[in-house]
Amino acid sequence: MTIVVSIPDARKTQWWIEQLQPLLPGWTIRSIDDPGDPLEVAYAVVWRPATGAFLPFPNLKAIVSLGAGIDHVLADRRLPRQVPIIRTVGTDLTQRMREYVALHVLRHHRDMPTIAANQRERMWKPLVQPPATQRRVGVMGLGNLGGMAAATLAALGFETLGWSRTKHRIEGVATYAGDDELDAFLGRCEILVCLLPLTPATTGILDAGLFARLPRGASLINAGRGPHLNDDDLLAALESGQLSHATLDVFHIEPLPAEHPFWSHPRITVTPHIASLIDPATGSRIVAANIERFEATGTVDDLADTERGY
Amino acid sequence: MTIVVSIPDARKTQWWIEQLQPLLPGWTIRSIDDPGDPLEVAYAVVWRPATGAFLPFPNLKAIVSLGAGIDHVLADRRLPRQVPIIRTVGTDLTQRMREYVALHVLRHHRDMPTIAANQRERMWKPLVQPPATQRRVGVMGLGNLGGMAAATLAALGFETLGWSRTKHRIEGVATYAGDDELDAFLGRCEILVCLLPLTPATTGILDAGLFARLPRGASLINAGRGPHLNDDDLLAALESGQLSHATLDVFHIEPLPAEHPFWSHPRITVTPHIASLIDPATGSRIVAANIERFEATGTVDDLADTERGY
Repeated sequence: MTIVVSIPDARKTQWWIEQLQPLLPGWTIRSIDDPGDPLEVAYAVVWRPATGAFLPFPNLKAIVSLGAGIDHVLADRRLPRQVPIIRTVGTDLTQRMREYVALHVLRHHRDMPTIAANQRERMWKPLVQPPATQRRVGVMGLGNLGGMAAATLAALGFETLGWSRTKHRIEGVATYAGDDELDAFLGRCEILVCLLPLTPATTGILDAGLFARLPRGASLINAGRGPHLNDDDLLAALESGQLSHATLDVFHIEPLPAEHPFWSHPRITVTPHIASLIDPATGSRIVAANIERFEATGTVDDLADTERGY
Repeated sequence: MTIVVSIPDARKTQWWIEQLQPLLPGWTIRSIDDPGDPLEVAYAVVWRPATGAFLPFPNLKAIVSLGAGIDHVLADRRLPRQVPIIRTVGTDLTQRMREYVALHVLRHHRDMPTIAANQRERMWKPLVQPPATQRRVGVMGLGNLGGMAAATLAALGFETLGWSRTKHRIEGVATYAGDDELDAFLGRCEILVCLLPLTPATTGILDAGLFARLPRGASLINAGRGPHLNDDDLLAALESGQLSHATLDVFHIEPLPAEHPFWSHPRITVTPHIASLIDPATGSRIVAANIERFEATGTVDDLADTERGY
């Protein structure tokens, strides 16, 4: 039986094959471009698979997404809808995400962009910020990543709020749920962190209407997906002063095109989709364990709900 | 009885007087420049007092330092040595310091200086860092501020080490003590945070000899005092590659002179002594409580050891 690996970068595909093979000795691991007998292919380990990539494999038991999100798999309009999708979430991924969120929330909270600009001008200007205990930070999306990020912010002392589609309980976090409680949540967020899954309901959610419901001068951190954000609405909100700063890790087109206005905007921080990465060394152990568990039991903890879209 | 306030900035002196007066209704609070009857002065609340500032007040019961450090008081060579010094440490001060340390350690760990430089070049270059669980961070100085900072780093997932003159125990932190254990500590620190008190023994401690004992490419965060650091040795260590980056909040001369090479160094981040500030609103409650407690009992928890120097 065969496991195929499909990643846009051929070198990374090779890395993953090399990492997975010793962990799954009973399996043949191959590139999706050279799969051998297609009837033998039982699993596909993928990041951004091509449209129709799975059609040659009628005996596919599950697709393994190399990340917490499955939007990059569901984007395939010829996806065989009955095939389960396994998300890859591990301590490594959640650890990196909580680092990113803590770093950038603290950076906004302590106004490091202004301090860095002052350094370039050789300007000594002590800016006093309230302590985190007097700063309200909201996290949208309270799955594995968002829940851990919110708990981390609360532990750092922030007054932390969380919003999600369905109600979650997180120690030290005031949680809100659903459309009915969205306004109450947004009205209190001085710093808003987006860690939502990308679904038809959340596409474009970070738009002028949402920004207008935040306190004036709020800031935004998007570590969800590029299409959560309406780029033009963000530029307008920064221009008007409704938003003070944005830190963006994800974009509609990645790599972010060189001519995009975000690169040189003084109140936008661009990071190159590095909030949370799965590296082959740690990620392959999670992938291998999930495949073995799925073979043995027909399910895993991190099975996606393809109807819901995450 | 009178309490005098001495701060180099006259406007801040006035703020503190206004904050303290309603909290200490039985006292007359005045500027040190207009103290009234000097025999009535029982307490002096000070930041960087002038040399000989306390000589006119023979009935002084205690000096209150508006900060955790007392080096700025001991710097007065005409200081009446028998007068106790009360340090001002509160949840506000420790909260701000742990934010600063978390922010800048995460910033070094995730190499934000390089990512920011890449943004200026419109360069999309995903840099993968190990998770914090594989990053060793050391904190020198484990008093109220350093201890809380080390605990915060451990909670964020860092492999955290701590060093101090005498042995401390902190949950999740590998602690080292004294000269005998300094080499073992330094040899493991990929990121070194200095939160030592400034004493004759720690003046100039951050020098070429210390840098050479860190792993090659380590980085430094100094939120202690400017004189902990040998400026020329830092520049040489950055030049040679022994150190990769330094973030400095404190300097030999503050404000940092406009012509100082630190301002424009690509691998030095300058912050204008903002790691942890006491603001009058929260700090005045701590100062007032300490004065009342000292009046009632003759001591307080945060009494400095003037022999030891902190």
